[in-house]
Amino acid sequence: MKRTKIKHALNAQEPMAGIHVGGWVRTKRDNKGFSFVEINDGSCLSNIQVVIDHTPEIVETLANVGTGASVAIDGELVESPGKGQKWEIRGTSIKLLGGADQETFPLQKKRHSDEFLRGIAHLRPRTNKYGAIFRMRSELAQAIHKFFAEKDFFYIHTPIITGSDCEGAGEMFRVTSLEHGSQKPVEEDFFGKPSSLTVSGQLSAEMFALSLGYVYTFGPTFRAENSNTPRHVAEFWMVEPEIAFADLADDMDLGEEMIKYLITHMLDHSAEDIELFAKFVDKSLMGTLENILNNPFERLPYTEAIRLLKKTKKKFEYPVEWGMDLQTEHERFLCEEKFKKPVYVYDYPKTIKPFYMRMNDDNETVAAMDCLVPRIGELIGGSQREERMDVLLSRMDTLGLDKEEYWWYLDSRRYGSAPHAGFGMGFERMLMLVSGITNIRDVMPFPRTPKSLEF
Amino acid sequence: MKRTKIKHALNAQEPMAGIHVGGWVRTKRDNKGFSFVEINDGSCLSNIQVVIDHTPEIVETLANVGTGASVAIDGELVESPGKGQKWEIRGTSIKLLGGADQETFPLQKKRHSDEFLRGIAHLRPRTNKYGAIFRMRSELAQAIHKFFAEKDFFYIHTPIITGSDCEGAGEMFRVTSLEHGSQKPVEEDFFGKPSSLTVSGQLSAEMFALSLGYVYTFGPTFRAENSNTPRHVAEFWMVEPEIAFADLADDMDLGEEMIKYLITHMLDHSAEDIELFAKFVDKSLMGTLENILNNPFERLPYTEAIRLLKKTKKKFEYPVEWGMDLQTEHERFLCEEKFKKPVYVYDYPKTIKPFYMRMNDDNETVAAMDCLVPRIGELIGGSQREERMDVLLSRMDTLGLDKEEYWWYLDSRRYGSAPHAGFGMGFERMLMLVSGITNIRDVMPFPRTPKSLEF
Repeated sequence: MKRTKIKHALNAQEPMAGIHVGGWVRTKRDNKGFSFVEINDGSCLSNIQVVIDHTPEIVETLANVGTGASVAIDGELVESPGKGQKWEIRGTSIKLLGGADQETFPLQKKRHSDEFLRGIAHLRPRTNKYGAIFRMRSELAQAIHKFFAEKDFFYIHTPIITGSDCEGAGEMFRVTSLEHGSQKPVEEDFFGKPSSLTVSGQLSAEMFALSLGYVYTFGPTFRAENSNTPRHVAEFWMVEPEIAFADLADDMDLGEEMIKYLITHMLDHSAEDIELFAKFVDKSLMGTLENILNNPFERLPYTEAIRLLKKTKKKFEYPVEWGMDLQTEHERFLCEEKFKKPVYVYDYPKTIKPFYMRMNDDNETVAAMDCLVPRIGELIGGSQREERMDVLLSRMDTLGLDKEEYWWYLDSRRYGSAPHAGFGMGFERMLMLVSGITNIRDVMPFPRTPKSLEF
Repeated sequence: MKRTKIKHALNAQEPMAGIHVGGWVRTKRDNKGFSFVEINDGSCLSNIQVVIDHTPEIVETLANVGTGASVAIDGELVESPGKGQKWEIRGTSIKLLGGADQETFPLQKKRHSDEFLRGIAHLRPRTNKYGAIFRMRSELAQAIHKFFAEKDFFYIHTPIITGSDCEGAGEMFRVTSLEHGSQKPVEEDFFGKPSSLTVSGQLSAEMFALSLGYVYTFGPTFRAENSNTPRHVAEFWMVEPEIAFADLADDMDLGEEMIKYLITHMLDHSAEDIELFAKFVDKSLMGTLENILNNPFERLPYTEAIRLLKKTKKKFEYPVEWGMDLQTEHERFLCEEKFKKPVYVYDYPKTIKPFYMRMNDDNETVAAMDCLVPRIGELIGGSQREERMDVLLSRMDTLGLDKEEYWWYLDSRRYGSAPHAGFGMGFERMLMLVSGITNIRDVMPFPRTPKSLEF
């Protein structure tokens, strides 16, 4: 017997004798003399239909086989005479591996709300929708590694536990080996000094870009922000490329190429799963993705963006002034109404951006960029980094940063500094873009949110 | 001008006009009327030689170009008349991007100790050895994703922050948003209950194997162990496949196939970098790797291993008794002296293994396995998981575990349970195996160890 994934059985080129399939029962229909059993093994969205003739032994087994049970089937793959599938399995034996009590099994064949399924996050990947999203999550992660490998990037595992307390924006979680409430001094803690969970691998990645050229990180990042919104979780995955001998235009080129590559890859490799979302979750999904693929991204200086926002008749909740950070309503106006495609806004006022972004010649703006995408908002945020030691030091002074703490970061500008740039992309946002899912909790295996740490 | 990575220039099929290269100067030699400048851009181990004729302007620039400086070169790729390289760049212009003070630059051309370089972990990837190991680290990570993708596995991001306090062995770091020393009750902490950094994604991955079939995790894991050895760090990366409808033999097959695939991939894709290690770090490296590739792994029941260890004339520090955990000296004897190849020891006494491992029919041993590899010791540890609810519950009772806390884990046995198995492989150990590096700190970008949290 050849162990076979249902995905391969359904894509077979010819009948196969002697195959063995393990999977979970989605439905069972008993007829006179035989039964239909629909099996899913998670390898793809589709079930395979098993037709199995009754013998006394098989009838006895089938009596205990309900929705959710796991079974092992021996049989042969034959062309299906029925409609709706090319192949089916003519079963010769069925073995019940693990039953599912039909009274209590939470995934009986009916629609369940996303909220209900969040409460059983350990079982939801057995549903069509969540099976699909987690296969897509895997495919998207693979696509990211493939994209960067093809472009000669090196994958760097930047540290998760960090001693830098101002890597980027956002509240940080503390990491400690002291007991809760311990009054021992921080010197007695594991690292002998305050330690936190990273909010960005950028500063570390810069050290590697300035050694290996093109690098990227792809790992978990953390925010201890007490916000319960469909867009916030405490733990999420981020992709952060960093490129040496490159400027802001190169950075925007890279981001645009990456986004288009990922969408193309997903349409090619996750077609069946994406179709599910286009059909049941977001009817405009295919249009959104094709629009992104088929248009060059707009590149709009911040100052010009402000001018456009001031000029429009549209009323905003937040008044528009040069120097402000763009709010979601402004971002959505620009990409969804004004340009109707992704928009890079770049050259932001220095006052609203961190110390490491490169000062422009006007001495008022820095070489920062955000990529705004219809329906998602900000998908990418990045900048050219300040490679000039004197300018960097003066920025740090202005912002009151402790230069001692950044001795290693500054070393990279002291020895063989070079122009470089990079950006961060929230992995979950990209997955929301290609699936149409609107709550970030529904694209993560076990989401971490305030007061919620189940599983 | 076409921006070109040195790797591609050195592998060119024909001369190229109008190329642009950015990189760091390794050496410079001035001659009458022209200079040689060796440039490295991190894309590969080899430097490219730039020959540049003197003009007054170029002489002025070259005066400030020392080892470690970053430069941008325009020129053409031509066949090199010199020995030792096929191609060189005939430079037409050189631009100094960032100088390096020759008095203080720590990476002057001489051998530095690994220990010294650990102190400048932000600069060490600019050396040959560390550039090579971090390119290999990237390649090995790519190979892992490729292997599992080819075998229809799905990549799952299991949570880093966890509420389970007994996922596996080892001390855990606490995660908190309360201030150091705060006396607030844990209910007021971010998650409202104790939270820690994961020591294994296994239990979460099992939920996905029992939905999607074949899955794997590849992410950071943590141990708050206060041990300062060449084999221990507080933060490291682990690969954990989990396969449904599979038993311990399948698990060992998978591990062996994976290890051989990874070594083959590295020999094919990182040949130049591995050669450096075979030459300067571990002269026996190639022999070790070929031995692993060319032999089927030994599969040895624990009870038989004990018999062999008792029988040998070799004296061990720890006396050998059935029921004991194998010590490093025993493991090394088995794989390095007795079998001289990788050895799976399997079916360990239940008393030394965790609750989730599957009980064997003898009721004394569990379906656990460790893969012992010459020079490295334990590279893989895994088991078939206990899929039978009654046996699992009785094990948890025996070990005094709180079943309430594992309600979700037990659900997977309650509904459609199926035989499944998995293992964990320390990513850094694998990287040490293919490089010959013996200190784990030297295969990590920024290692985290007790009292050490720099960078």
